[in-house]
Amino acid sequence: MAVQTVASTTESVDLGPAAALSCRECGHRVPLGPVFACEECFGPLEIAYDFSGYDTEELRKRIEAGPANIWRYAPLLPVPADVAGKPNLNPGWTPLVKADNLARELGVTGGLYVKDDSGNPTHSFKDRVVAQALEAARAFGFTTLSCSSTGNLAGAVGAAAARAGFRSCVFIPHDLEQGKIVMAAIYGGDLVGIEGNYDDVNRFCSELIGDPAGEGWGFVNVNLRPYYAEGSKTLAYEIAEQLGWRLPDQLVVPIASGSQLTKIDKGLQELIKLGLVEDKPYKIFGAQAEGCSPVSVAFKAGHDVVRPQKPNTIAKSLAIGNPADGPYVLDIARRTAGAVEDVTDEQIVDAIKLLARTEGIFAETAGGVTVGVTRKLIESGVLDPTKTTVVLNTGDGLKTLDAVAGTGLTATIRPNLDSFKEAGLV
Amino acid sequence: MAVQTVASTTESVDLGPAAALSCRECGHRVPLGPVFACEECFGPLEIAYDFSGYDTEELRKRIEAGPANIWRYAPLLPVPADVAGKPNLNPGWTPLVKADNLARELGVTGGLYVKDDSGNPTHSFKDRVVAQALEAARAFGFTTLSCSSTGNLAGAVGAAAARAGFRSCVFIPHDLEQGKIVMAAIYGGDLVGIEGNYDDVNRFCSELIGDPAGEGWGFVNVNLRPYYAEGSKTLAYEIAEQLGWRLPDQLVVPIASGSQLTKIDKGLQELIKLGLVEDKPYKIFGAQAEGCSPVSVAFKAGHDVVRPQKPNTIAKSLAIGNPADGPYVLDIARRTAGAVEDVTDEQIVDAIKLLARTEGIFAETAGGVTVGVTRKLIESGVLDPTKTTVVLNTGDGLKTLDAVAGTGLTATIRPNLDSFKEAGLV
Ligand SMILES: [Zn+2]
Ligand SMILES: [Zn+2]
Repeated sequence: MAVQTVASTTESVDLGPAAALSCRECGHRVPLGPVFACEECFGPLEIAYDFSGYDTEELRKRIEAGPANIWRYAPLLPVPADVAGKPNLNPGWTPLVKADNLARELGVTGGLYVKDDSGNPTHSFKDRVVAQALEAARAFGFTTLSCSSTGNLAGAVGAAAARAGFRSCVFIPHDLEQGKIVMAAIYGGDLVGIEGNYDDVNRFCSELIGDPAGEGWGFVNVNLRPYYAEGSKTLAYEIAEQLGWRLPDQLVVPIASGSQLTKIDKGLQELIKLGLVEDKPYKIFGAQAEGCSPVSVAFKAGHDVVRPQKPNTIAKSLAIGNPADGPYVLDIARRTAGAVEDVTDEQIVDAIKLLARTEGIFAETAGGVTVGVTRKLIESGVLDPTKTTVVLNTGDGLKTLDAVAGTGLTATIRPNLDSFKEAGLV
Repeated sequence: MAVQTVASTTESVDLGPAAALSCRECGHRVPLGPVFACEECFGPLEIAYDFSGYDTEELRKRIEAGPANIWRYAPLLPVPADVAGKPNLNPGWTPLVKADNLARELGVTGGLYVKDDSGNPTHSFKDRVVAQALEAARAFGFTTLSCSSTGNLAGAVGAAAARAGFRSCVFIPHDLEQGKIVMAAIYGGDLVGIEGNYDDVNRFCSELIGDPAGEGWGFVNVNLRPYYAEGSKTLAYEIAEQLGWRLPDQLVVPIASGSQLTKIDKGLQELIKLGLVEDKPYKIFGAQAEGCSPVSVAFKAGHDVVRPQKPNTIAKSLAIGNPADGPYVLDIARRTAGAVEDVTDEQIVDAIKLLARTEGIFAETAGGVTVGVTRKLIESGVLDPTKTTVVLNTGDGLKTLDAVAGTGLTATIRPNLDSFKEAGLV
C-alpha cells in the first residue's frame, strides 16, 4: 500500500498517513489540499493513504491502548499523530449494543447488534466526520468552519468550532423549526438563515467558496469533503474491534448522500488489507425512506444510475434526493451481495418504537429507517437471520421528537389507589 | 473495612461487596432488602460494604481492564460481580473535558474540567443511579420498575426497564409538556399521568408501595433508594481515574435532593481508604438555583437545618424544595471548607451559553447552575482559580430547549453574495 511521492505542497501539511488526494473515477492524484473535484474528469477526490510502515500486531496494540474515542484509529485517518492532544470534541467509541430483545422480535438467531451513535457529543454520527474536517481545516490554516445544513450538521460544526477555537458560520434555510435553530445557535457561532430552500443554501455556499469573502473558510462538506467523509470509516473500525476484531456478516446502513455507506465499506476493506481482521465475505444493505428512495429504486430496477427524487419523508436527515455517492452504493450492494431497500414513514415510526421498547434506545428517524429496513429484509428472506448482523443508529430521537409526537400517556388517574386500580394496569 | 456477619436473608442476595444496610443516623444495621428507612430512628439507610479482601494494586488493574462504563467499578458497587454480562444500559465513563477555553474566560489557571454526563444513554446522570436500582430489583425478584418523576428519571427508568426485560410503570403529573411525555413514553412502558402536582404523585407512590397492588414493584427512588443513590459514587471514581488517579482540589456539584453530592464525597473517601488515590484535602461546592435555594440559604445563614422552599426556577431537574440530604450537604461543604451558592435564572441561561460557546457542550439547566455558580464563586474569591477544579454537567440541553428558546439566527439573507456582504459578517 505504499504510494508515490506527491507534489511538494503536500510536505508542509501533516495529516498523518494521508499521502495525497486521488480521483475515485480516473485515479488522477493531486497533493493534499482543500479541493474536492478532479481537475481532469470532475470525479470526486478521496484520500490516498500510505500505510506501508505498519506491522499488524503493533498497530492492533497501539489502537487498543488508544483513547476511548475515534483517535484510537488516528494511524488510519487523515489527521496528525498528535491529534488527541488538540482541542476537539473527541467523538466515537459509541456502544455496539447486543440487541437480544430486538433479535427475538425479529427472529434473528445469529447475533444482532445496534451500533448506537446517539452517544456522540452532539448526538449524531456527524461529530465523526466534522472532527476530520476540523483537523484538515487546521492543517490548511483555515480560521472559519462552515457548512450548509438542515439539522444535525449545523450543531456538530458549531460545537466543534467552539471547542477548537474556530469561528463558525453555518447556513440554513431561514424557516427551520425553532428547536433546530436553538440546537445550532447555542454554540455562539454565526447562524445565517437564507430565504430559500436547502438547494438555494447549497448554491449560495458554492458561490461563497469562489469569492474572496469565503477566503479562509473551510466548508466541511464541500471543500473539505474528502477529509470529512473519511470520518465514517471509524464506524467500520469500531464495529470490527467491538466484535473482537471480526467482520460482521451483514450490515444495515442508512443512505443520505451514500458517503457513509461507501466509507464503511472502505474501512472494512482496509482492516482486511492491514490484517487486523480475517478476510471473509460481508454483505452491506442500504436503507432509505420510501419518500426519498432514489438508490433503492435504482437497485431494484437493476440500474447503474440514480434518478433524482423530490424528497417527502419524516426522515429528514436522509432526505437527499440526488445522492452524490448513489452509484457507488449500488456497486457495493451488488458486489457484496447485499441490497438496498426502503420503508414507509409509518414503518419508520413503528421501528423507532420497536427499538425503544426492546432495547431502550430512542433513535432518530434515520434509526427507524435502518431498523425498519432490517425487519423488511428479514421478512422478504433477503437478510439471513442466522448471520451476525449490525444495524446502524446514526442519531438521537430527541432531535426528531415530532416524528413520534403521538406517543403519550397509558392512563390518566386521580391520585388514589382506587383510581389506579380502575385503570386496569394491575 | 470488614463488617459483621449480617442476618441470614442477606445470604441469598448477591450484590457483590454490599454487606448490609446501615442507618446513616444511628448506625443500626439490617440485611440487604428493599427498605430505605431505619426501623429504630427513621433515618436513611445506606449501603455498608465489605471491601476487606481488596489489594490496592490488583483492584486498580482490575478497574483499568474493565469495560468503558460504570461496571469497571463493580467491585465498589452494590451489584453482582457478573453485572456487565446482564442486560442493562451500561452508562458512565463519560468525558472529563479539559475546558481550557472556559478556564480562560473565568480566569482559572489551575486546570478546569467539565465532567459531561450528557453522553449517557438517556443523556443524564440518572442512568447511573437507575442502573444500580435495576440490579437491586433483579436481586430482590421484582418484575416492575417504577418511579415518580417530572423528567429525566422517567426516561432513564423506561429505557433501563426496556433493555433489561422488566415491565415499567412510571408516574408523572398529567400536565407535563408533550415533549417530556414523548421522551418517557417512547420506551413502551406504562406511563401514568396523575391529576395533581409532583407532591401528589409522590404521595400516591408511597401509598402504592404499601398496597398489594404494588407487590413486586421496585420504586427506584423509594424502596430501592439506598442502592439507587450509590450510582452517584461512580462520578467520583471516574473523575479521579480520568485525572490519573488523583483527587481534584475543588468540585462544583448541583444540589437537588443533595444525594448526588453526598455520594460523590463518599466515593472520594472510599478511594482514599482503598489507597487508589493519595489522601489530600478537597473542597466540595454545592450549586443551586436562586429560585430553589434552601441549602444555599441555610449554608449562608450558618444553619444546620434546611428550611423548605416552594421552587420557582427554570432549573426544573434541581427543583426540590425540601431536599432530603440537605443537612448532609451542609456538613460536607463545611467539613471540606467548600460552600453552597446559588444563581438566578438569568445567570443560568448565561452560563449555558458560555459553556456552549467556549467548549461546544450544550448543557441542561442544571449545568448552567454549576457553571454559573463556579463563575460567581471565583468572582467572590471563594473558589481558588489556581487549583484544579471539576464542574459537573449532569444533563443535556436538548431536554431543556425552552430555557434558551430566545437563541436564534445571527442574520437572515437572500441567497446571494451581495445580501451576505450587507449582513456585515465578513
Ligand atoms: Zn478524475
Ligand atoms: Zn437509625
